[in-house]
Amino acid sequence: MVGLSRYSEYFAWLQPGAFPERQPLRLEASPGVSQTAREECVAGMERLFGKGVWAADAPVTVALARDAALPAEGYALCFDAQARRLSVRGNGNGLLYGVFALLRALATGVPLAQVAAQSAPAVPRRVIDHWDRPDGSIERGYAGRSIFFRNGALAYDAARIRDYARLLASVGVNVLNVNNVNVDAAGARLLGPEALPDLRRLADLLRPYGIRLALSVRFDSPVLLGELPTADPLDPRVAGWWRERTERVYAAVPDLDGYLIKADSEFQSGPAALGRTQADGANLLARALAPHGGIVYWRCFVYNCEQDWRDASVDRPMAAYDEFMPLDGLFEPNVILQVKNGPSDFQVREPNSPLLGAMERTPQALEVQITQEYTGQQIDLYNLAVQWEEVFAFPAGEGEALRGLMGGKIRAMAGVANVGDDENWTGHTLAQLNLYAFGRMAWDPGLTAQAVTGEWVRQTFGADPALAGPLTGLLLESRAVYEKYSTPLGLGWMVNVSHHYGPSPEGYEYTRWGTYHRANRDAVGVDRTGAGTGFARQYGAALAARFEDPATCPEELLLFFHRLPYGHRLQNGKTLLQYLYDAHFEGAAEAEGFVGRWDALRPLLPEAAYASVRARLLRQAGNAREWRDVVNTYFYRLTGVADEKGRKIYA
Amino acid sequence: MVGLSRYSEYFAWLQPGAFPERQPLRLEASPGVSQTAREECVAGMERLFGKGVWAADAPVTVALARDAALPAEGYALCFDAQARRLSVRGNGNGLLYGVFALLRALATGVPLAQVAAQSAPAVPRRVIDHWDRPDGSIERGYAGRSIFFRNGALAYDAARIRDYARLLASVGVNVLNVNNVNVDAAGARLLGPEALPDLRRLADLLRPYGIRLALSVRFDSPVLLGELPTADPLDPRVAGWWRERTERVYAAVPDLDGYLIKADSEFQSGPAALGRTQADGANLLARALAPHGGIVYWRCFVYNCEQDWRDASVDRPMAAYDEFMPLDGLFEPNVILQVKNGPSDFQVREPNSPLLGAMERTPQALEVQITQEYTGQQIDLYNLAVQWEEVFAFPAGEGEALRGLMGGKIRAMAGVANVGDDENWTGHTLAQLNLYAFGRMAWDPGLTAQAVTGEWVRQTFGADPALAGPLTGLLLESRAVYEKYSTPLGLGWMVNVSHHYGPSPEGYEYTRWGTYHRANRDAVGVDRTGAGTGFARQYGAALAARFEDPATCPEELLLFFHRLPYGHRLQNGKTLLQYLYDAHFEGAAEAEGFVGRWDALRPLLPEAAYASVRARLLRQAGNAREWRDVVNTYFYRLTGVADEKGRKIYA
Repeated sequence: MVGLSRYSEYFAWLQPGAFPERQPLRLEASPGVSQTAREECVAGMERLFGKGVWAADAPVTVALARDAALPAEGYALCFDAQARRLSVRGNGNGLLYGVFALLRALATGVPLAQVAAQSAPAVPRRVIDHWDRPDGSIERGYAGRSIFFRNGALAYDAARIRDYARLLASVGVNVLNVNNVNVDAAGARLLGPEALPDLRRLADLLRPYGIRLALSVRFDSPVLLGELPTADPLDPRVAGWWRERTERVYAAVPDLDGYLIKADSEFQSGPAALGRTQADGANLLARALAPHGGIVYWRCFVYNCEQDWRDASVDRPMAAYDEFMPLDGLFEPNVILQVKNGPSDFQVREPNSPLLGAMERTPQALEVQITQEYTGQQIDLYNLAVQWEEVFAFPAGEGEALRGLMGGKIRAMAGVANVGDDENWTGHTLAQLNLYAFGRMAWDPGLTAQAVTGEWVRQTFGADPALAGPLTGLLLESRAVYEKYSTPLGLGWMVNVSHHYGPSPEGYEYTRWGTYHRANRDAVGVDRTGAGTGFARQYGAALAARFEDPATCPEELLLFFHRLPYGHRLQNGKTLLQYLYDAHFEGAAEAEGFVGRWDALRPLLPEAAYASVRARLLRQAGNAREWRDVVNTYFYRLTGVADEKGRKIYA
Repeated sequence: MVGLSRYSEYFAWLQPGAFPERQPLRLEASPGVSQTAREECVAGMERLFGKGVWAADAPVTVALARDAALPAEGYALCFDAQARRLSVRGNGNGLLYGVFALLRALATGVPLAQVAAQSAPAVPRRVIDHWDRPDGSIERGYAGRSIFFRNGALAYDAARIRDYARLLASVGVNVLNVNNVNVDAAGARLLGPEALPDLRRLADLLRPYGIRLALSVRFDSPVLLGELPTADPLDPRVAGWWRERTERVYAAVPDLDGYLIKADSEFQSGPAALGRTQADGANLLARALAPHGGIVYWRCFVYNCEQDWRDASVDRPMAAYDEFMPLDGLFEPNVILQVKNGPSDFQVREPNSPLLGAMERTPQALEVQITQEYTGQQIDLYNLAVQWEEVFAFPAGEGEALRGLMGGKIRAMAGVANVGDDENWTGHTLAQLNLYAFGRMAWDPGLTAQAVTGEWVRQTFGADPALAGPLTGLLLESRAVYEKYSTPLGLGWMVNVSHHYGPSPEGYEYTRWGTYHRANRDAVGVDRTGAGTGFARQYGAALAARFEDPATCPEELLLFFHRLPYGHRLQNGKTLLQYLYDAHFEGAAEAEGFVGRWDALRPLLPEAAYASVRARLLRQAGNAREWRDVVNTYFYRLTGVADEKGRKIYA
């Protein structure tokens, strides 16, 4: 198994190892094999087996070859026992992915002679979206400052970017959007002539790893950059402006993937403000990008963020569907509508967006958050693979799971990065798992959280079952634990406003953000059935019917879809209130239990990882206690009903 | 009456006028009359009556003279009808105050021949505390950036500072503390050698107006400035450090008033953190200042700002009394303990601090906030003179009103400035009144709000009764209106956390700030009687008894001292809940009514003031509506009880 003496949090899941079954190898590379694929194979084997692994006269050969017959970006691994030859074939970047698949197999304990796999990505675009700002700060970043930007411009340690590209390529990410989707003035200037040499250099750095650059743009750039009096998408000057700018960008970065844009959303400019449709806006950019093969990722996170809380008829989760469904068929073919997994906003628990897969003639991207904005901010442990598995399993369209649409109606998967310049990339060392899982599951949405978590644990900390088993188990539970103390029964938005960490039961109740639970002394939740806001009707009839009946609505979404009295009986006979109390007591106890469970693994863990993770687990335990007491007290004050089990609830 | 054609918001209450009863005057100044007193007399008369007012052969004389027989800083004004001679005498700075008293009398419509007054300040120190930071920002500032600081250092428009000093001197302020009491690193460096020339220049600018400079200092300065390993007040090196620093400061500013310090409070360093008492800390600075006649203003705003909300036994308003009463008699004579008017924190409604006047052997300063932190942020109208009149009338010690201690146990009055670099100084033009009233009432705590408000209105906008009457009335009501929608029955802290503007009923409930109302479905408020936290017992027995009985507790403080069920009947038979509803409906309606009442005065108002104030009144009306609906909904959700009058409360 992997010897961990050279463990560093920086290496993430590409740790140096020392396998006992080490055997000499010789490398063979066919013509056309990229230098990167070759180098990564050499370095990767040396990482696992030591520098002496390569020998010209070794009896076993690792043979790299391009194979255009494989699916796009696909690879095949096969060990020919007679020839004593491990063949790694790939189509295009698929060869590099094949090398990493081989290294992954070996690192997770597959003997060389048993390696055999064939795979291709489910979706052609697997995108990591950085919300990094030119000033070096990161919106919703919990792992330090940007690794890309400093002092208003692209400025980075090239070696670190190469290491990052390696990590991304090792899990199949092939697009990197470098700047925050809330584009500030400095971000807008990335389209300007002075930034082009920097963009070119960055793209050159990423390209060997099969990663294409993308940019977030602002809809009002023609005005903001001072060149036009309007950003109206129907104004020919505006179309010309985007065409010219885009030509210049592609002259610097010929393989730019395209533009990402958050328009008419949370104070970002957009076509609606000018009396035009979202399609008008998206097509404007699409036409500028089309000659270069570029894509517009047009975000569907459009809603009224200045809602009056008094108006219960407006229901924010309905906004994207209402806005975009009528436009189906009106978009240029190189527009991809980017839809957040949930209709609300990256919550711990929400149904899938009804817009996902609902459009017949418009390709979509599924957007998830790898960074833990609402999910513990890389202080609390939260395994997003568990959540994503559920997202993929959620029904879409005619009863099909969303998973089945990946590569069909859904052409891309985008994840908001959780990476900063912290030594361990992700603040919480165990949050590296989320970055890993994003790439793996975007490539193969059929992977279970169990499989992905196990893979990551074994690569990162070694395959000793005494460690890998318990740690995988702990990680798999982490989402449920966090859910218990933050979002039981789908009751969300009890979080502190703005920064979104820790409890504030009424924090959002009277704000303009459209996010309310409207708890009173008798009941809690929003009625989203046909008798209420009607949100449930945005799903297909069968699914809507299931959600609309509290008896058939999945329990974990009960208070997302329903407003219910505290005495409402759940399927196990427990009252709703008691469930809320129990969930908070259990969640806090389980979070506290993580510390002891982690401590028990200490002998098997590298000390650096043990210590840094332990410090976070202690903070999590405190946070969970706070959630428990604040939310329980809140409901106790509202209801006057004590805990059935007599546990302490503060007055 | 005053012609307002030359009105400017910048002139505040020293507006140019054009009096019909203008008559030629000649000036006579005895030896020893300061140049400033003479110049302000000349310029002030010209401001009121025009440049041509002075004539060498005029029949009436204005005679300025020093008179050491008057009380310190006192003045006497007297018109001798026979000699046709208006005599203005003053002791020291009193002569300048006499000049401004004369100008005030004339501007408010007293005919020259009827001018007669004698006055001296109640307290020797009338201090304006600026919470300006060297970077130019202002903590709790609502009127732009600092007029003193820019880019980390003192940097100002000297003419503006002179204009400000004139405004302050015209109302009797004689100390100006220039930097924020939360002293940042740049603020701490004001004690360093590089800042001394700047301090000297500023003091030189203020001195002609009888204003002495003071500085906020940090307790850990010896460490922060990198010169000592400790700030322990009992360490001789620390005493030596302060002595030397202070000598150097006095070499630059020989009449420095002294140091203000916020120690062991809200993350500021202090002696308690080093295991020493507040007296140890205060005496350290006092001994350094004593040789120079300097004063330490030691703030008593010391409490646990990391309280656990679960612990209902800790009651923040009790902290200052508990901390400082046992230390009475242990302070050096040049220590003044600076006590906020209320025990909580500059709230709209709270009782006076029980510490005020309670110490037998320690002089105190009464600290109030002129800047409207909790009181509308210079968006909502709030006449602080009304509140201060109540503060002065509040019982202190043996049943005496606090007013009676001014100049006795209470040796100073300090106000946190509401001034920034906005053209009109105070953001809201009508908030100039609060600056004016602070100076006037610190000088004479016997002045009523009615008198001060009337004075200010007539000087600022002219003495036309059709304007002055209604406007004075509106201003006098403004505090009650704001109180209705923000703090009825003394129920405070339903405000947004941190910035303190607008409603958030549970904003502070689960924080660490020690500020809770603990509302539940049955009752609201904190029991501060002997049966509860015992806070009421910090007052004298008679007062405590009055507060402890809900039947005798002043209604406006009912929920400050008591926890009561919503059905509790007030003296007029109304339930507590209905009172809360009514107060919010009335307050919002009255705030909205301000707009119409202001509009009705438009013909009598300078257009600039009309427009700028109107914009704020509209914002206030919106804020009041938000308070009304949020707080009413909050209590409706808690109680399920509708408004008796059937008005709209949102669910």
